[in-house]
Amino acid sequence: MNNPAISPDLTAHLEWCRVHVDQVIDRRLSTRDKQADRLVEAMRYAILGGGKRLRPALVVMACEAAGGAAQTALPAAAAIEMIHTYSLIHDDLPCMDDDDYRRGRLTVHKQYDEATAVLAGDALHALAFEILADCGGPDIVREVAHYIGADGIIGGQMDDLLAEGIITNEQHVSFIHLRKTASLITASVRVGGRLGGTTSAQLEMLTGYGRDIGLAFQIVDDILDEVGSTEQLGKTAGSDRAQQKATYPGVIGIEQSRQRAAELCAAAKRAIAGLGPGADQLVALADYMILRDR
Amino acid sequence: MNNPAISPDLTAHLEWCRVHVDQVIDRRLSTRDKQADRLVEAMRYAILGGGKRLRPALVVMACEAAGGAAQTALPAAAAIEMIHTYSLIHDDLPCMDDDDYRRGRLTVHKQYDEATAVLAGDALHALAFEILADCGGPDIVREVAHYIGADGIIGGQMDDLLAEGIITNEQHVSFIHLRKTASLITASVRVGGRLGGTTSAQLEMLTGYGRDIGLAFQIVDDILDEVGSTEQLGKTAGSDRAQQKATYPGVIGIEQSRQRAAELCAAAKRAIAGLGPGADQLVALADYMILRDR
Repeated sequence: MNNPAISPDLTAHLEWCRVHVDQVIDRRLSTRDKQADRLVEAMRYAILGGGKRLRPALVVMACEAAGGAAQTALPAAAAIEMIHTYSLIHDDLPCMDDDDYRRGRLTVHKQYDEATAVLAGDALHALAFEILADCGGPDIVREVAHYIGADGIIGGQMDDLLAEGIITNEQHVSFIHLRKTASLITASVRVGGRLGGTTSAQLEMLTGYGRDIGLAFQIVDDILDEVGSTEQLGKTAGSDRAQQKATYPGVIGIEQSRQRAAELCAAAKRAIAGLGPGADQLVALADYMILRDR
Repeated sequence: MNNPAISPDLTAHLEWCRVHVDQVIDRRLSTRDKQADRLVEAMRYAILGGGKRLRPALVVMACEAAGGAAQTALPAAAAIEMIHTYSLIHDDLPCMDDDDYRRGRLTVHKQYDEATAVLAGDALHALAFEILADCGGPDIVREVAHYIGADGIIGGQMDDLLAEGIITNEQHVSFIHLRKTASLITASVRVGGRLGGTTSAQLEMLTGYGRDIGLAFQIVDDILDEVGSTEQLGKTAGSDRAQQKATYPGVIGIEQSRQRAAELCAAAKRAIAGLGPGADQLVALADYMILRDR
């Protein structure tokens, strides 16, 4: 986060979210008995070893934008990060993207083994819903489940794998990215908005914002994979090209991809213009999305 | 189910549950768009290709035992079967138990591939919670998530893998089986009980019943793996011994294992004696648990 283009306010707020969300995660993942040690250890290794914590920050900031207190959103924010981490663990498996590094460390299946990685992901997935059960009612559970299922991140990941090595176009890549990445980011802001007591009109604004920055985030991810270094990213750079993934730079080139990301961030900011000054952090985060270098 | 020791009433009721739960599953897993075809196809292949549907039947019968209508319990029963199926898909993966057959057909990773199997399991896991969100409040979501997480089936599966090839004792095997198998069966009757409007005293009875028949079920599974045929079981017989799994026959022999299962079924029936005639089907199901041959 030492990027000079990021406002000190946003940096401080992201840091506040990171610290507090990590406290919730740490408490929920205390090791309770010896037999469970390896599993809980692997869960802790995966989730507490770094990460930008953007999704939990979005939960918190959307809650604030809707007029709620940041504190209210912390359990749900932790649950969303658990879901994100579970999806990374499974995506990194040898049968999927086969990645050895994540967040600057060995992936879970390299540090432990594949079985432990599958199970640690499954257990984080379940724990997230155990937490979400107590976060404001059935709408939140139903929505999160929907956004991360066959119509959301899992459907997107399936399409992403099926698209490997296939000549494709921007429309198809956008369709994959919206499900693979934007759906959990959209769920994050919707959950935060609901916790903050949003109106349905505000929820629609947040949804548009989430969709746009979600897609922008993945486009920037695609760009960084091409132009960044493994050290800087904490994961293997250039892996998209090596695996012939369907990416924005792959279909429209780096420069046009940057352009698309900038347009989407502008659209995201317009989408929440009606939320007023409570949404200032979300606006700053949209700017950060395209300026980030890891 | 063509076992003459099973009452015609139970057979008919199990069949009613199977048909109606499968209808709910079929509706929730309609193929909605072309891109999702492979994923939804794999989910359907895994869940609609047979299976005894004991867990959904337990949800329905526990609901009835608590005074509720069977129909009320069908969505939750379908969700529980989705969770069961997801856990089987992941357990069968090469990195886990490495099984080629399940329910008389190729396992999902053999019929499709490993990535599709991981994702189909993940998507069924999420879909179950999407359905459970609308099934009677946060208690049900929280409980199910807990029983299937690190303290439940996932913790049990981790222990099961760690115990391979290790000389162990009955206490340890029981600890593994209670989490690996009894926890989802306990969750099934608790969810059914809650949907039927159970009192907390009745819920405790159902919990004792679930724990006992859950453990008995896994002991019988262990026995059938030793004495049954692959054709009869629909999955590879003798695989526990080949993989040096921690099993009841392995630590106390076949005859004592049969004895334990019978004791547990008797205890299960005693546990729900206070529920009256509404629990007759649960009593019959406890008897079936030890008489089943597949």
